[in-house]
Amino acid sequence: MNEIITVEQKVLKKNDETAAELKARFDNAGVFVVNLMSSPGSGKTSLLEKTLKIVSPALSVGVIEGDIQTNLDAERIAQYNIPVTQIITNGTCHLEAKMIDEAINKMQLKNLDILFIENVGNLVCPSSYYLGEHARVVIMSTTEGEDKPLKYPAMFLKSCVLLLNKIDLLPYLKFNIETAKKFALKINPDLKIFETSCYNNHGILEWCEWLTNELKLKRCKARLPT
Amino acid sequence: MNEIITVEQKVLKKNDETAAELKARFDNAGVFVVNLMSSPGSGKTSLLEKTLKIVSPALSVGVIEGDIQTNLDAERIAQYNIPVTQIITNGTCHLEAKMIDEAINKMQLKNLDILFIENVGNLVCPSSYYLGEHARVVIMSTTEGEDKPLKYPAMFLKSCVLLLNKIDLLPYLKFNIETAKKFALKINPDLKIFETSCYNNHGILEWCEWLTNELKLKRCKARLPT
Repeated sequence: MNEIITVEQKVLKKNDETAAELKARFDNAGVFVVNLMSSPGSGKTSLLEKTLKIVSPALSVGVIEGDIQTNLDAERIAQYNIPVTQIITNGTCHLEAKMIDEAINKMQLKNLDILFIENVGNLVCPSSYYLGEHARVVIMSTTEGEDKPLKYPAMFLKSCVLLLNKIDLLPYLKFNIETAKKFALKINPDLKIFETSCYNNHGILEWCEWLTNELKLKRCKARLPT
Repeated sequence: MNEIITVEQKVLKKNDETAAELKARFDNAGVFVVNLMSSPGSGKTSLLEKTLKIVSPALSVGVIEGDIQTNLDAERIAQYNIPVTQIITNGTCHLEAKMIDEAINKMQLKNLDILFIENVGNLVCPSSYYLGEHARVVIMSTTEGEDKPLKYPAMFLKSCVLLLNKIDLLPYLKFNIETAKKFALKINPDLKIFETSCYNNHGILEWCEWLTNELKLKRCKARLPT
């Protein structure tokens, strides 16, 4: 087993190094990079579509789609006339920094305000792989049960935003949203939580406002002497 | 990268060997072993609770719960007076045969008719790790979107049953159940599909009937000369 652990550590260390290089490139280009992560089917792509509708007229946005198979999500995003690059991981259960490194070679980073990376649908493995992003956003849907933050703590601990999605379904579920929030904040008291729905657009504006505020803040900070 | 692939192959090969030994022990004990797999929050534990209510009075059932953190699911199952063993993987995103090997040392296999293994909530990695089970059951909920079989094909290809769960929510979703079935059968034409709901019990009896029929069939076959 030691052999495996050593190789895993090597892989993560190499990934962190590549991610640090990516971060420097992102900062240099002045692009704000957001890594979207969740279980399969929590609504990552739908939330991204709603977000693009609101922020993309005013801001220049790019998208990297990560999937194990298929480019279905990239096709959905391309309809918004957004530059989108598909990474097909061929079985790998998460995105890695070197995959992002290859993907951004096809993109004009300097032209972008925000780059969204939609990770592979997986509440476990993507949390270990830093991609040079400025913010991690975890999406959890009301249909998944309140206990997910306790059962998958790493994902919630390393995120700065939790989008509690599909809240339109609350009337039809035995889901206690206050308990879910309590569990999420128990793992990470600094988590900013938005309740969202892609059916009735609840919370989408607030989430987009957070995004644009973060972008502004990042740019103001970049003007300070280092 | 070759070093990593080699170690991965070694790990999977060793896992397969341990799984084959487990399979022999399961067969020798006459226990039918079912590996339940899905995304986080698809309803694995709720379906298991419903199943126990129906099959456990007549059959002797045991449960192994796999979780990254917490023993919340094991606590839920223990309420049914069912022998339950919790495996906490401490970050590992799937169950492995050696974990099952340790867990069953605490169980009286010969006294069991069915052993359920509830895998870690993850639609990717658990599909690569054979646990000596006789049947894999994948659960997908209507809230996850129709495209999951195409996006996570390995899980659907290696399962023999698909439980399409949370069908009570269909009136509130833009989910086309026929499209979901078509995609699942495109990946695996041999998949047996049940539509289920833990809210109104739809399909639970039919799924339990399948289970008991499989158990009987397995026992009949075991009486044949080898």
